[in-house]
Amino acid sequence: MNMPEDRLTIAALGGVNEIGKNMYFLQYADDIIVIDCGSKFPDESLLGIDLIIPDVTYLLNNVDKLRALIVTHGHEDHIGGIPYLLKQLDIPLYASRLTLGLIENKLKEHNLLRQTSLHCIDGESILTFGSITTTFFKTNHSIPDCLGVVFDTPEGTVVHTGDFKFDMTPVNNQYPDIHKMADIGKNGVKFLLSESTNAERPGFTPSERLVGAHMEEAFQKAEQRIFVSTFASNVARLQQIVDAAIKTGRKLTLLGRSMVNVVGVSQELGYLSIPDGMLVEPADAAKLPSHEIAVLCTGSQGEPMAALSRLANSSHRIMEIGAGDTVLLAANPIPGNERNVSRIIDNLYLLGARVIYGSRSELHVSGHGSQEELKLMLTLMKPEYFIPIHGEYRMLHHHRLLAEAVGVDEDHIFILKNGELVESKAGVVRQSGSVPAGQIFVDGLGIGDIGNVVLRDRRQLSADGVLITVITLSQTDGRMLNEPDTISRGFVYIRNSDKLMEEINQMVTDTLHNMSHADLRQWNIMKQTLKIALGKFLYEKTKRRPMILPIIIEV
Amino acid sequence: MNMPEDRLTIAALGGVNEIGKNMYFLQYADDIIVIDCGSKFPDESLLGIDLIIPDVTYLLNNVDKLRALIVTHGHEDHIGGIPYLLKQLDIPLYASRLTLGLIENKLKEHNLLRQTSLHCIDGESILTFGSITTTFFKTNHSIPDCLGVVFDTPEGTVVHTGDFKFDMTPVNNQYPDIHKMADIGKNGVKFLLSESTNAERPGFTPSERLVGAHMEEAFQKAEQRIFVSTFASNVARLQQIVDAAIKTGRKLTLLGRSMVNVVGVSQELGYLSIPDGMLVEPADAAKLPSHEIAVLCTGSQGEPMAALSRLANSSHRIMEIGAGDTVLLAANPIPGNERNVSRIIDNLYLLGARVIYGSRSELHVSGHGSQEELKLMLTLMKPEYFIPIHGEYRMLHHHRLLAEAVGVDEDHIFILKNGELVESKAGVVRQSGSVPAGQIFVDGLGIGDIGNVVLRDRRQLSADGVLITVITLSQTDGRMLNEPDTISRGFVYIRNSDKLMEEINQMVTDTLHNMSHADLRQWNIMKQTLKIALGKFLYEKTKRRPMILPIIIEV
Repeated sequence: MNMPEDRLTIAALGGVNEIGKNMYFLQYADDIIVIDCGSKFPDESLLGIDLIIPDVTYLLNNVDKLRALIVTHGHEDHIGGIPYLLKQLDIPLYASRLTLGLIENKLKEHNLLRQTSLHCIDGESILTFGSITTTFFKTNHSIPDCLGVVFDTPEGTVVHTGDFKFDMTPVNNQYPDIHKMADIGKNGVKFLLSESTNAERPGFTPSERLVGAHMEEAFQKAEQRIFVSTFASNVARLQQIVDAAIKTGRKLTLLGRSMVNVVGVSQELGYLSIPDGMLVEPADAAKLPSHEIAVLCTGSQGEPMAALSRLANSSHRIMEIGAGDTVLLAANPIPGNERNVSRIIDNLYLLGARVIYGSRSELHVSGHGSQEELKLMLTLMKPEYFIPIHGEYRMLHHHRLLAEAVGVDEDHIFILKNGELVESKAGVVRQSGSVPAGQIFVDGLGIGDIGNVVLRDRRQLSADGVLITVITLSQTDGRMLNEPDTISRGFVYIRNSDKLMEEINQMVTDTLHNMSHADLRQWNIMKQTLKIALGKFLYEKTKRRPMILPIIIEV
Repeated sequence: MNMPEDRLTIAALGGVNEIGKNMYFLQYADDIIVIDCGSKFPDESLLGIDLIIPDVTYLLNNVDKLRALIVTHGHEDHIGGIPYLLKQLDIPLYASRLTLGLIENKLKEHNLLRQTSLHCIDGESILTFGSITTTFFKTNHSIPDCLGVVFDTPEGTVVHTGDFKFDMTPVNNQYPDIHKMADIGKNGVKFLLSESTNAERPGFTPSERLVGAHMEEAFQKAEQRIFVSTFASNVARLQQIVDAAIKTGRKLTLLGRSMVNVVGVSQELGYLSIPDGMLVEPADAAKLPSHEIAVLCTGSQGEPMAALSRLANSSHRIMEIGAGDTVLLAANPIPGNERNVSRIIDNLYLLGARVIYGSRSELHVSGHGSQEELKLMLTLMKPEYFIPIHGEYRMLHHHRLLAEAVGVDEDHIFILKNGELVESKAGVVRQSGSVPAGQIFVDGLGIGDIGNVVLRDRRQLSADGVLITVITLSQTDGRMLNEPDTISRGFVYIRNSDKLMEEINQMVTDTLHNMSHADLRQWNIMKQTLKIALGKFLYEKTKRRPMILPIIIEV
């Protein structure tokens, strides 16, 4: 699809009607600017899939128009798709310092670091891409160095908030720049794209500083080892954990690759301050008296291979958790992870640990603004048109209600599907068509090679297994040369001697005997007939529907 | 295992360190009394499994000693395993009237109704089973007619609470009999087995009556059709929905088999009162003016085949939900069901419905007592020994802390695993050995025929699919008669013409060519060698590990 020259278009390639794989673009004439390129974890129905990334067909068809990829912050749902994008096309990348540091780590892993043009920006940067002038404003979120983005286009100003909350007492000076936001609003905003994660939640999200107070209290009470698990990227929280350890005279050790990575980058870039000599290697920490050590570890979402899970199973290589140790879970389970997290808590209690978890512990606050903060953003920006982004449908719906409540016209609000376009042409705004958008599955080394057929097969295989029957026919006269050879996996445990196996082989032989001579010449008909006959037989016998694969060999 | 004659033993066959499949027994000399026989739904790791039931090996080995199966109430986690138990052994069953009604429905479905001896009991019943006198006390829970059980044995009194909360303003007179509980405590309790579901939750669970007030308010505000989804078994809530419909002049219709079942049984037995003519068939309801109808439907847990899910997808046979209709979700998602429930809410908003959901709507309260209620039960019963039951380990752990707080001796508390025995012999109490206990999987018609091998195979099949390669060898000289015949399912979509398929077949041929003459005579070695070679090759090519099944045919 080619856009007419004199209009502005805006679309999501990912991030609406879902949580994850955020990717948006806007285009005026021949200039396309992309915002974020995230990934998303599959739900349990996408068997075997490792990662989901956005479909970037539209960008691949318009590589000559790509001016910039602007990244609002360093969370996976905003940066996780970048390596896969950069393998397919070249685009200069702009991000703040910490965001860039995290992206560089990622590009290094994919051997893409050298070939990509990376640019460091901050809240004061001004960039011009063809007809579009781009500026920024600082926001606060659960990772430092977050930016909102302002695009001045011939059709008016477009604001993309990125992820935000309004934390007035932030840790490490990560203040949201409310004055600049007010100025932007005063100058007139045509389109506001604002995130919707907590649009269902009334009130105002508590400050990260609240966590610091409870963290320190928990450290004060602990008598033996302390283990804290939280999102590695929440650098402000890491700082508060460091501070609590300092106040209680404990050294700190890190478990888990992403924790080591983020702490490394954040320290190097000055976002995290840890006194010299405080950080010790796990092997050394294991030798310290138990009241002198705090362990910062990954796995707060119950990930089975992460440090906390291994510790809870007593299968960690170096450290162990014992009676009297304290474990602080400074994160809420993301929907879908509750069971895994609960299992870890059970195991920690079995080890005799004190476990502090759950919303009552106040060791976690959300990084996303609640309804009052979303209304504050809408009020500051006073947009003419509003596009709620970054959320599932019910969140976008509630965000729309908030926008209406603060005075945005009902018919100036667009709830988009991924790929759907909003255009402004000579000041007239409307929804107009769409570009390709969907989910691309990453499975092992394959990107996009797993489609619905393979997933449907995996679902059938996962529920009832597979039954394979091999029939050997004579090339000369078409008669069966052998008994059928039948095996199954994941269906039910059958030995060759079992009656069920005999019955299956008899059924195969009988079915072939009863087929006409003409049909026996057509393998597709033979296979289909066997599938139906065996399927019916097995369902009656077992009420299960294994995948049935007849294989015909001609010798 | 045979128990010595002169001691009392108590054990869980299911229900501790888990939520679900509750089953307990106690034995004195030659008398065994079983309490409850529940089922449990599998988590997502148990691929293809339909249901989990307790292992009853111990009971099967002691059929001559089985005196009674006492059922505390009619929830699936207490009655779901009964048909499977009764297929294996005979035991007289005792339950209250509604519980019995629900069990009868279940036995009818399994053609077991006539052969089972069923006995109706109530809070005043007194039964003698050999050396054990059994009495009961009424409790309140999220289904009517719940009983706690008291066993007077030569070793002292054992109390099993069943599931309970202390609702002082219950619906339909389902008062907990606190006075009787106080008497039981006054007479001395040796062992208390008390349920632990909400042991992590501070405070006192709100009364079911709170839901009634909010339900009525929601009915008053609705302008068009009302759809309410809740647990079918919560008869008190159904009554409050009926009452709200009466007050707002709406007729009622039912969608979903379990809703129709429970409403039928409850009406028949007098637990649910619906005025004549108020209940209409769905087809007739669909023709009524929208403000005159309320729909009561199953599916509050997001079950994909249930009525609410079909309504949200606009795929219900009879009714549909449209703009302006109101949907009330009077249930919280059970952990693990959050995503499915969220998907339904999204779809309902997409249809233009008003959706009332979540804890803030106050359309749901728990049926289980919180910490203050658990402490109240412990205080009323003043047990010498305490066994927290009905909960995952962290819940049992917190219940232990509550028991200690109200004065139970730390070393008089037993957190058991399923199957572990507590015995009392001449007044001396100790933990002593165990009987078999585990999970039996029901899959289709198979009970217990799915083991770890089949599940492990299903897991591999679900993640990376299967690759089958058939090799045809000559019986006379062992040489390959054909090219290998290779197919895959759920791995990656490969056509026969694809290069990967050629490479696989070449690899198979080469591998066999390189094998010694001796090894080629041993099919197990051939298969193993092919599996390793192909596995390595495919992992390098794809980073996936499909199940590899070489099949050798000799003609």
